Amino acid sequence: MDGYPVLDKVNSLEDFKQLKDGELSALAAQMRQYMIENISRCGGHLASSLGAVELTIAMHRAFDSPVDKIIFDVGHQSYAHKILTGRREAFCTLRQENGISGFPKRDESEHDPFNTGHASTAISAALGIARAKKLRGEEGIAIALVGDGALTGGLAFEGLNDAGQADVPLIVILNDNEMSISPNVGALHRMLVNMRSSEQYVRLKRTVVRLLDTGITGRWLSRHMENFKNRVKSFLMPKRLFEDMGFLYLGPIDGHDVGELVRMFRRAKELRVPVIVHCVTQKGKGYAFSERNPEKFHGVAPFSIDTGNIESALKKSNSSVFGETMVALAEKDPLLVAVSAAMPIGTGLTEFAGRFPDRFFDVGIAEEHALTMAAGMASGGLKPVVAIYSTFLQRGYDQILHDICLQKLPVVLAVDRAGLVGDDGETHQGVYDAAFLSTMPNMTIYSPATQQELVHMLSLAVSRGEPAAVRYSRGSLMQAVSAQTVEKGVWEELEPIADQTVIATGTMVAVALPVARKFGAGLINARTIQPLDEEMLARVRRVSKRVVVMEEGVDCLGLRVLAALSPLPVVRMCVPNDPVSQACVNHQRQFCGLTAERLEEALSEACG
Amino acid sequence: MDGYPVLDKVNSLEDFKQLKDGELSALAAQMRQYMIENISRCGGHLASSLGAVELTIAMHRAFDSPVDKIIFDVGHQSYAHKILTGRREAFCTLRQENGISGFPKRDESEHDPFNTGHASTAISAALGIARAKKLRGEEGIAIALVGDGALTGGLAFEGLNDAGQADVPLIVILNDNEMSISPNVGALHRMLVNMRSSEQYVRLKRTVVRLLDTGITGRWLSRHMENFKNRVKSFLMPKRLFEDMGFLYLGPIDGHDVGELVRMFRRAKELRVPVIVHCVTQKGKGYAFSERNPEKFHGVAPFSIDTGNIESALKKSNSSVFGETMVALAEKDPLLVAVSAAMPIGTGLTEFAGRFPDRFFDVGIAEEHALTMAAGMASGGLKPVVAIYSTFLQRGYDQILHDICLQKLPVVLAVDRAGLVGDDGETHQGVYDAAFLSTMPNMTIYSPATQQELVHMLSLAVSRGEPAAVRYSRGSLMQAVSAQTVEKGVWEELEPIADQTVIATGTMVAVALPVARKFGAGLINARTIQPLDEEMLARVRRVSKRVVVMEEGVDCLGLRVLAALSPLPVVRMCVPNDPVSQACVNHQRQFCGLTAERLEEALSEACG
Repeated sequence: MDGYPVLDKVNSLEDFKQLKDGELSALAAQMRQYMIENISRCGGHLASSLGAVELTIAMHRAFDSPVDKIIFDVGHQSYAHKILTGRREAFCTLRQENGISGFPKRDESEHDPFNTGHASTAISAALGIARAKKLRGEEGIAIALVGDGALTGGLAFEGLNDAGQADVPLIVILNDNEMSISPNVGALHRMLVNMRSSEQYVRLKRTVVRLLDTGITGRWLSRHMENFKNRVKSFLMPKRLFEDMGFLYLGPIDGHDVGELVRMFRRAKELRVPVIVHCVTQKGKGYAFSERNPEKFHGVAPFSIDTGNIESALKKSNSSVFGETMVALAEKDPLLVAVSAAMPIGTGLTEFAGRFPDRFFDVGIAEEHALTMAAGMASGGLKPVVAIYSTFLQRGYDQILHDICLQKLPVVLAVDRAGLVGDDGETHQGVYDAAFLSTMPNMTIYSPATQQELVHMLSLAVSRGEPAAVRYSRGSLMQAVSAQTVEKGVWEELEPIADQTVIATGTMVAVALPVARKFGAGLINARTIQPLDEEMLARVRRVSKRVVVMEEGVDCLGLRVLAALSPLPVVRMCVPNDPVSQACVNHQRQFCGLTAERLEEALSEACG
Repeated sequence: MDGYPVLDKVNSLEDFKQLKDGELSALAAQMRQYMIENISRCGGHLASSLGAVELTIAMHRAFDSPVDKIIFDVGHQSYAHKILTGRREAFCTLRQENGISGFPKRDESEHDPFNTGHASTAISAALGIARAKKLRGEEGIAIALVGDGALTGGLAFEGLNDAGQADVPLIVILNDNEMSISPNVGALHRMLVNMRSSEQYVRLKRTVVRLLDTGITGRWLSRHMENFKNRVKSFLMPKRLFEDMGFLYLGPIDGHDVGELVRMFRRAKELRVPVIVHCVTQKGKGYAFSERNPEKFHGVAPFSIDTGNIESALKKSNSSVFGETMVALAEKDPLLVAVSAAMPIGTGLTEFAGRFPDRFFDVGIAEEHALTMAAGMASGGLKPVVAIYSTFLQRGYDQILHDICLQKLPVVLAVDRAGLVGDDGETHQGVYDAAFLSTMPNMTIYSPATQQELVHMLSLAVSRGEPAAVRYSRGSLMQAVSAQTVEKGVWEELEPIADQTVIATGTMVAVALPVARKFGAGLINARTIQPLDEEMLARVRRVSKRVVVMEEGVDCLGLRVLAALSPLPVVRMCVPNDPVSQACVNHQRQFCGLTAERLEEALSEACG
């Protein structure tokens, strides 16, 4: 490994602590290069990790992990932390099977005190740790590193609200990379930053603000610098907000200035109260292509370092098909609206947002609100489609049940990334949605096996005017093998019901098809997980001696089919309750036994 | 109906609108009396409804329902609204079977535009309605009436965060009854209120604040009125907070002054932007006993109007048993802590909170935070027990799965009000928890059938140091019929496994016991819903020809037993997926078929 003379010395956090201050900027540059090289090969969350390099260096300079507990909200931005805490060499295995995780993991290092993955959890977790330290009389402080995006989540607010009045020291480091707060306000800005962290700052700030308000200096300034006051207001605003919640506020400071960061973090630690340190960073910093287009390099597939071109999938993704269908439906129906929770690109809604800006609502990382707001829209006569990844839909369990299903309001859930998701691992598996949605009243669950079915089912779900979910996998479903009409509660008989019949749903239909043909077994495409097709099940009961159910989720359709067909023997192939770790989707399916080989074995058993 | 001369004229909202302004204070007094009389007979949410009488009168004076849509957050405080909108006579059927609901219901009145029950949904719902109105070009405005308690919920924050920047008119009426803002600050207070709603208020407020800050007037004031500045700050604080979120803020105003309220509401409507109207009310107002003790009269059983004495249950509640056990465990184990989400009394933790104030954490209406914070505590070495009603635990689905179960952290969930809950109806049924918890990795679900088991299971769950839930019903479980040791995954054979065997869990054991004896059937007390007792199931498979499973929840244990015993016939008695409306618990059990009679039928079928 040439070209990393400083980084090469860092095999552990102790090594890092031996480095001289003068070596840190070289270290930062080498860490960026190292991340870019590795992620260009294996993919990962590049932009946020590039933005947090100096933050991470400064945290490990100012704090004393593992006595101090550093919690990375979401965890995307923990790569630099992993590299500094003994995982530099293992970094080339990032997000790969048996490699290191793309998120903090307690099992992986004593420097990862709390697992993350979903947004907005870090403040709550850090507060819990701080309270534990206090009660147990332990040393050290709890630190939550939180992005500005995650702050829109209600859980983060609940955490701030409790932490601000809790009598425990706690540091929230706000990694503000949305550039909403201008980093170059200049001298006054820097002065205010220093002021805020001193005991004198309250009085001095008052003078400045009064100066602006009296209009004397302010009038002169506003004549010469049009948006000066707005700029002042924009960085006073978060300060006020956090102070109102009981935090002491330091910042905003340059999140790429290690020396300044270390000074602030040390001061924050000395204060022994809840403190917010507001750091402004540039997402994607240090790589021209990601600086220009941080969204593109957020979670990224392997790419060419020289050109910034990302390897693209050969097939059209289900998210794209969903997005195109939404545009087509919206053209015909002025009441159709789309709601996203900070995932307009990931869910394929970019074109919709551009074409129908007044009918597109991105509410930020706020799944609960997205769903209840959509329920309100539906009660007001609109036809909302809420596109949320399966794993994040878990955040909205109560809103789906209490606000949508119990009122039987026509909200359609577009459940993207349903099933096994690959590299992100256990925190992001979309394997629970069918199980929990199927217990809710008035809910229809569509499960397309082909991209054509996805189109038809979305259209059907919107037109029926009732609560519904359409769940589809990451990647690309197969192309249609037939062109039957899609109806609620009507399954498709792909291979005639026989002695042995396979009932598969979603992605599993493509897996089962060649096997069923090879074995002369029946094959049913269970297009809806709820309701079941009772008529077709009655025929299965009459004809078949044995049934195999395949689904890419925890036991749900299998149990329901078993209950419908009992005492007919039903083999249930599904995702186990155990966490499914990172690996490619095919390997994860092997782990779960959701493969053609296992289906062959299951069908052979009866013959043996 | 004597004694209600004004109220008697109000058979509809139109009648109310005919009343003269001079009649409104008599109306308010008569509405209070009418509510007290009715609720003293049938129970209900008295204190919050008493506090919101003038707010409701003023809303219906200033707004034009159903063109304007008024959404009552939680819905406890909607009684006055029901009385004014054509449900005065039906009010005596409140919360009774086939009567009117204790919460707003779309099916009940065109004046109830959105069903509520769980806290913090109204702002999101109102925003959805406002957006629908804008897109559809409809008249009218959306209004959310929200208590200060519900504002601590993350969903409310997510709603404010989105609404404040949305380009739609919307009114949030903050019903602030916590008295945290002193209602009697006097002249300056009233002046500021008027100022804030005028265009001049910004400049005037600045003058006042500057006066205080310069120290000239302020020093004099603070010498003479010690907490004057704090009082000013305390009502400037919410103003700032809401303004920072993009709302125009009016208030705080006296929430019992109808004339003032009507003026403010009308002004808020004219502004056509997101507005917060901050109203200060007295919870329980107009009834001496509830004024003195609003917590006691929040949700209340029938009581004596003259003495304020509430009918109390004869048996000790499960919540009390839980609370006593927590105290006993805490005495022995300094690492045990209790976490509540705004329900210290309801969950039985009052004594614990008094005895161990540094180990008791009430985080407000913030279930998500309660759970993730507890996960943080557990990662820091504490043993947190989080007491949340089953229906509210739904709010924390993702936190249980993502933060507790995937990390296998030792957090114990005390799931109170599990099962059918009676009067509160479908929004509050605790029938989903077992189904969703049973799909989560590493989760043990204890289901006590007796109060003694509740004690032992809580102790066992805490001592095992792994994720666990102990689910117990509202009211009182039976007393122990035996004294076997409780172990994880070990069921109790109450009547010897026989040709027919009943497997019951929780409350259903008491229902099944006499029937099983009468029929000579086996009876198993399924003490854990997860894991199953595989050894005992193997014996059932060998001995029994038919099994009946009984559980007070949606299909969960039944399906799992079916899967374990297939092809043995298993009759599953459980709560259906359809919503279960308000009635007494016994009638709700009849609706669900969870009765001794139905079990007799089920056992007789095999003989027939």
